[in-house]
Amino acid sequence: MQAPSILLTDFYQLTMGYGYWKMGLSEKEAVFHLFFRKHPFKGKYTICCGLEPVIEFLNQLKFTNEDIAYLGNLRDNKGNNLFDEGFLNYLQRLEFKCDVAGMPEGTVAFPHEPLLRIKGPLFQVQLIETALLNIMNFSTLIATKASRIVTAAKGDTVLEFGLRRAQGPDGGLSASRAAYIGGCHATSNVLAGRRFGIPVKGTHAHSWVMTFDTEKEAFRQYAEAMPGNAVFLVDTYDTVQGVRNAVEEGKRLRTKGFEMVGIRLDSGDLVDLSIKARKILDEGGFPDASVVASNDLDEYRIEELKSKGAKIDTWGVGTRLATAYDQPALGGVYKLAAIKDESGNWDYRVKLSEQEIKVSNPGVLSVRRLFENGKPVGDVIYNMAEEKSNTYQVFKGKEKSYDFEMGEDLLVQIFEKGKLVYQSPDITSIRENTLRNLELFKDIDNYSYGLDSNLNQLKKDIISKNRKA
Amino acid sequence: MQAPSILLTDFYQLTMGYGYWKMGLSEKEAVFHLFFRKHPFKGKYTICCGLEPVIEFLNQLKFTNEDIAYLGNLRDNKGNNLFDEGFLNYLQRLEFKCDVAGMPEGTVAFPHEPLLRIKGPLFQVQLIETALLNIMNFSTLIATKASRIVTAAKGDTVLEFGLRRAQGPDGGLSASRAAYIGGCHATSNVLAGRRFGIPVKGTHAHSWVMTFDTEKEAFRQYAEAMPGNAVFLVDTYDTVQGVRNAVEEGKRLRTKGFEMVGIRLDSGDLVDLSIKARKILDEGGFPDASVVASNDLDEYRIEELKSKGAKIDTWGVGTRLATAYDQPALGGVYKLAAIKDESGNWDYRVKLSEQEIKVSNPGVLSVRRLFENGKPVGDVIYNMAEEKSNTYQVFKGKEKSYDFEMGEDLLVQIFEKGKLVYQSPDITSIRENTLRNLELFKDIDNYSYGLDSNLNQLKKDIISKNRKA
Repeated sequence: MQAPSILLTDFYQLTMGYGYWKMGLSEKEAVFHLFFRKHPFKGKYTICCGLEPVIEFLNQLKFTNEDIAYLGNLRDNKGNNLFDEGFLNYLQRLEFKCDVAGMPEGTVAFPHEPLLRIKGPLFQVQLIETALLNIMNFSTLIATKASRIVTAAKGDTVLEFGLRRAQGPDGGLSASRAAYIGGCHATSNVLAGRRFGIPVKGTHAHSWVMTFDTEKEAFRQYAEAMPGNAVFLVDTYDTVQGVRNAVEEGKRLRTKGFEMVGIRLDSGDLVDLSIKARKILDEGGFPDASVVASNDLDEYRIEELKSKGAKIDTWGVGTRLATAYDQPALGGVYKLAAIKDESGNWDYRVKLSEQEIKVSNPGVLSVRRLFENGKPVGDVIYNMAEEKSNTYQVFKGKEKSYDFEMGEDLLVQIFEKGKLVYQSPDITSIRENTLRNLELFKDIDNYSYGLDSNLNQLKKDIISKNRKA
Repeated sequence: MQAPSILLTDFYQLTMGYGYWKMGLSEKEAVFHLFFRKHPFKGKYTICCGLEPVIEFLNQLKFTNEDIAYLGNLRDNKGNNLFDEGFLNYLQRLEFKCDVAGMPEGTVAFPHEPLLRIKGPLFQVQLIETALLNIMNFSTLIATKASRIVTAAKGDTVLEFGLRRAQGPDGGLSASRAAYIGGCHATSNVLAGRRFGIPVKGTHAHSWVMTFDTEKEAFRQYAEAMPGNAVFLVDTYDTVQGVRNAVEEGKRLRTKGFEMVGIRLDSGDLVDLSIKARKILDEGGFPDASVVASNDLDEYRIEELKSKGAKIDTWGVGTRLATAYDQPALGGVYKLAAIKDESGNWDYRVKLSEQEIKVSNPGVLSVRRLFENGKPVGDVIYNMAEEKSNTYQVFKGKEKSYDFEMGEDLLVQIFEKGKLVYQSPDITSIRENTLRNLELFKDIDNYSYGLDSNLNQLKKDIISKNRKA
């Protein structure tokens, strides 16, 4: 799976782009921000994820000859060419020239905070909207889901098993990457293992057991082939007997110098069966053998099973993680916030809406995270292009004072005039960043995030001007 | 987006494969079927989709040198190589040799019917499980969702706009293809347009309007650039005024020999606003202009809006279609049904479960669709390798008689010993097949589908034998 084509875009980006080009506006400098308005899963935080795939996409942004030929053949409803030759030439010559700033993967983010800030020629910033949303929405959704599941598992191992029911091949691949970043320990997805360096895990399926005349024979043969990777799936026929068969095979393995890793439960009453399995394993001399469980698990189910006393130490989580089953899309948006006028000044823009939450923020924005004694105490969205205030307006809250110097910017520079100036950390470091962020925010219930007061005033001024117009 | 890598698989397929290879069982002939157990969306039918992407995947099935190097470096929990040299050589020499039969895309399918039947060397049939499930589950899910939305739209135009919130780049691409097959009329996804030949649609976004000082100016400039593709998005500031501005621009367009296509509503009370918009358009002399609506639409919402009198004739459906929001995964499975024994006879297998619905069917299966006066009256799953009965056992129903000669097989041969023998229809024909299937099944409420009685007896015999063992 290589980086997506430049044509991974909504058609209206091209029709608008054509309009801008025809009017001579396509090179005008504009600023857009990508952000979300509500935490997913009715949660209290969001784990930002997707920067590296965004970089891969932007770093190879070109129209191929086939792309141009395709666009040249499109017709309007009168049967005329939709795009003229000059525009097609413009596309063919396109070189990515934007400034891009982004939030490092694994950062805890809050509503309205820019995850990406794109500044550059109006045509380009508009063209890339769809792909950026597609990548960031899904990666951020799954990293957040994974972090919730890992949190519910309270230090137990969490394995991501979602590929077979993920939304397409790349739905699976992107999900495996984001799930690992969100804190999972390994994946079953071999391609994700190879492509991203994620640990891969897996042993055998029911079909293995069914291939042999008896379950004992199946376990024996599996252990012969892979003595150092022996997790026995015990529920093909009778689960309790399956655990006993595993213990028997585990004892034989031991005589050969290998230790059974554990057993896996994939159906039935996981509380009752895991308690029974744990007992049989312990009494059989395998107190260190794992009890792995799978079967429609997510953070709610893991919490429930734990509260009921299930003796499970490794959780295989599939469909509900890889598709974010209870909320399969993050509603991230990408909004115009400023355009440079002829005299080189920023002309700020706000998208109005009757719903206040849907009104966008003007400016060239960044986010300052404020710390006290090493703990985050607030996030301030501010306009880099204007004077900052020493107070900020907390969303749905009061105005608070803040000291800019006591904070850190959450956005880092990624591209400068189209040139990549950022090196993504390796995936292990990204995952550690998530875990560090989760630790920092774990006790925070009502986090203060809002707009620098000068920005808040600018926004109000623009809204009232627009409402009058 | 090329066909997925052979490594798009769960790791346990490789560890099991290694076990089979070590035991000399990897070339043993086996039969697996891919099927689902329940219609998605609490519905009454499922549209089968995914065969062509499956063919693309299987037709290039090879381990690359990089794949082999990656697998050669994996270690077990004692730090030893997981796979030995001989197995890696076996992988490197792999040539796809399976027989594959499949259900043509756009066919109405029922629970337990094989959508794919794979027969071939045990190692190969097992290895490809995950990718086949990934592709078929998602494509079938989205084609079914799309067909439900198209049905709710009762002949109106349905546009798929889901890319920005789809599950990853390929989640979007696969969804656009399946949505078109399910009956949508066009997509916003330009890459899907180029790649699959689907019509693409789109005009402009709120950001276009916000780029100009006034909405009138924005519409004027859009119409100048694209006079033959004028759909005006009217809800950036005040929707009713927006429709009036569109009418004004439409009149100007007419003096230039072009006709406004329509207006689009993307927020607010779509019933009230569409009625007002329709009136303003009609009174303004534009009775043929479309009223396009978008904003979290799906089949339920479309039915509701229609029942409340909304005057909408074109539906832009995004997130809820492309992610199948209310059920984002189809629980398709892939089960072993037969293995050839040393004397060349089929040894049938059944996966047991306490839940009857989860017990799999043995055999080398196909599906016969029975017709009376051109109308389908029943589906019979039968074992091609044994004598058929002249009755079949309807699931949760009675035994019925049937005449095999009065039916048609739903599965067609795709690969013979690894050689592709099937030519996929073009996407327009596939879509027409869906619409024809929907028409055939539209009045059928309790469709009779079940197992040929001989197959049903075979299944019972195996279950009782296994339960005793």
